[in-house]
Amino acid sequence: MNTAVAVADFRTYPLISALRGVQGLADRVVIEWADSRVSPFHHVWLRDNCPCDRCVYSVTREQVFESVDAAEDLQPLATRIDTDGCLRIDWQDGHLSRFDPGWLRAHAYDDESRAERLAGKPQSRLWHSDLQLPVFEYAALNDNAALLQWLLAVRDVGLTQVRGVPTEPGSLKLIAQRISFIRESNFGVLFNVQSKADADSNAYTAFNLPLHTDLPTRELQPGLQFLHCLVNDAEGGESIFVDGFAIADALRLEEPQLFQALCEIPVEFRNKDRHSDYRCLAPIIALDALGRVAEIRMANFLRGALETSVAQMPLLYRAYRRFIAMTREPRFRLIQRLNPGELWCFDNRRTLHARNAFDPATGVRHFQGCYVDRDELLSRILVLQR
Amino acid sequence: MNTAVAVADFRTYPLISALRGVQGLADRVVIEWADSRVSPFHHVWLRDNCPCDRCVYSVTREQVFESVDAAEDLQPLATRIDTDGCLRIDWQDGHLSRFDPGWLRAHAYDDESRAERLAGKPQSRLWHSDLQLPVFEYAALNDNAALLQWLLAVRDVGLTQVRGVPTEPGSLKLIAQRISFIRESNFGVLFNVQSKADADSNAYTAFNLPLHTDLPTRELQPGLQFLHCLVNDAEGGESIFVDGFAIADALRLEEPQLFQALCEIPVEFRNKDRHSDYRCLAPIIALDALGRVAEIRMANFLRGALETSVAQMPLLYRAYRRFIAMTREPRFRLIQRLNPGELWCFDNRRTLHARNAFDPATGVRHFQGCYVDRDELLSRILVLQR
Repeated sequence: MNTAVAVADFRTYPLISALRGVQGLADRVVIEWADSRVSPFHHVWLRDNCPCDRCVYSVTREQVFESVDAAEDLQPLATRIDTDGCLRIDWQDGHLSRFDPGWLRAHAYDDESRAERLAGKPQSRLWHSDLQLPVFEYAALNDNAALLQWLLAVRDVGLTQVRGVPTEPGSLKLIAQRISFIRESNFGVLFNVQSKADADSNAYTAFNLPLHTDLPTRELQPGLQFLHCLVNDAEGGESIFVDGFAIADALRLEEPQLFQALCEIPVEFRNKDRHSDYRCLAPIIALDALGRVAEIRMANFLRGALETSVAQMPLLYRAYRRFIAMTREPRFRLIQRLNPGELWCFDNRRTLHARNAFDPATGVRHFQGCYVDRDELLSRILVLQR
Repeated sequence: MNTAVAVADFRTYPLISALRGVQGLADRVVIEWADSRVSPFHHVWLRDNCPCDRCVYSVTREQVFESVDAAEDLQPLATRIDTDGCLRIDWQDGHLSRFDPGWLRAHAYDDESRAERLAGKPQSRLWHSDLQLPVFEYAALNDNAALLQWLLAVRDVGLTQVRGVPTEPGSLKLIAQRISFIRESNFGVLFNVQSKADADSNAYTAFNLPLHTDLPTRELQPGLQFLHCLVNDAEGGESIFVDGFAIADALRLEEPQLFQALCEIPVEFRNKDRHSDYRCLAPIIALDALGRVAEIRMANFLRGALETSVAQMPLLYRAYRRFIAMTREPRFRLIQRLNPGELWCFDNRRTLHARNAFDPATGVRHFQGCYVDRDELLSRILVLQR
């Protein structure tokens, strides 16, 4: 007998609790586990998840069977726990399915199992002006364990600094590629943040830039932003950060109606130059399926004229003004000057960044920046955690 | 007097109708236009949109003023139509704003103006098996007018073919770059669709692939997908397409409860190999802010085990099975074999694609593919339309 029951992906599923009993109902099988948890599994779900090598291609572990290839009302002929402790189902149409108990427990959808998995998901750690900035050493990041610690801080805190980075132009590429490929934009793969006479963005002037996210003008704002300091001889130009999730959280508590307005009323952002014309209509605060704040979209200097009904316009302005006013409150702001060989890496969809005006007459200021998407960060973390 | 009143972007705004009258209320100005339309503008909105060169940097046309830099209850001292036909406001705090009547009309937010703009937005043209496929000639696309026609078809129909493309590997890059840079993924910048022994996706086998969107495992699925045929000597391997928006539309009419379930219950998709582990939890049908179908996310072979409450699971399976069953209905399916020198360019977030199984023993089949995001398509169209 083959004790290694296939599973439909490359993970391993430790045995949490053995199968103790199986009961058959009209449309489902009800499992009782050794630790007394009870998990129903519908027949249609079980047939769909059959991991046998006729249903799943063993090289890619991707499904070749599709749910509609079996009858909607397909019934088991026999259901039992086999001698390997697996759930075995002999189906009416002759197909045989066996389920590993570790895999089954990891995918059980009774309320208790679902709540348990939800509680195990990573949580953002909100911060204010007194953040103990997570700082990492460039040289140490060759080690995968150190790399993982850095990436977890980026994911959960949303703001990190790396020190000891070479100051040759282009060095940023090497560090970003420790995570993944770089996300290109119309500003290039690496972009140079310098004061330019023919600026195509206020970012490329010496002005102060208010707290913002980059590229709110794209449907998917870049996930991670890197800003690497090569030269910083000019007076001024300090970096400022706020945790947009902490501001949204405070707004939700302090002014729930204004929070709601920023979640519901979309605002247009646009980036235009001779070669491009980007526009994106989206709310300033986006929630995930569980109602948690998942994203902030904000750059006042890239915003279009607000457009909503005449009746709603005063509410939208109260909310918009309140949000901007909060980004200016000292309780949220972390201010620090970046030195050559240091870089910021932050969650651009959460952590708003700004810089004070600088005086180009007092010296050169040259930063390089780039983007990597959240998908790549999360994938890299999962691979490093294997 | 300066007749060229600045506007806060690079577009030009023709005069639709002159300002006929201005009335001041407690919190707003009410404009009556020469064509009798009435448009209220709140004071806070007008001050925010002041286009003067103290509020907007004239090089980038980006705002440097922020709404909170003025008092919330700032009032006009005087409001009038000046001799150039502009709205002129002298504010209590000494600031002066002048608004071009073309710009003002284009941004009016009375109900009539908003409905007019909404009606002018591009609409998807739904299609079925009898689609007259929009076909374009590669050589003609050097011309910007022809390029625009192609891109409009991609946007509105979501499926196009280009013929006469060189069959040297890499040629696809040139055509994709007529739109923009290419979106990289873990499969590379250009990916080779060939049968491989160590496939890291069912796409790289000779199996039939059911109708799907690419990379539903990423938060933002790639917008445009290109598939360029270099060699196609193998038997089988025909391309199949369905308009996912047409299927969603039919489902909404025929089974509204199932449509609703696919809009509301998220499903996990995942892509895993030795170097990556992507997961995305999202509904199969996404609506835009106006309730229109904006995106389909579907690849059965990349889907994880369905997870929802025990009570909802049967409904989710009915909906999921119905959607897949519809992708198999002849009324929706366009089937065509791609020949060397031809390419498909389609909206990957709308148009599902499939291929029949092919027999690698009968000959070589080599396609190259790449992605370009919707943001880039829409920006390119707007620039070509200037």
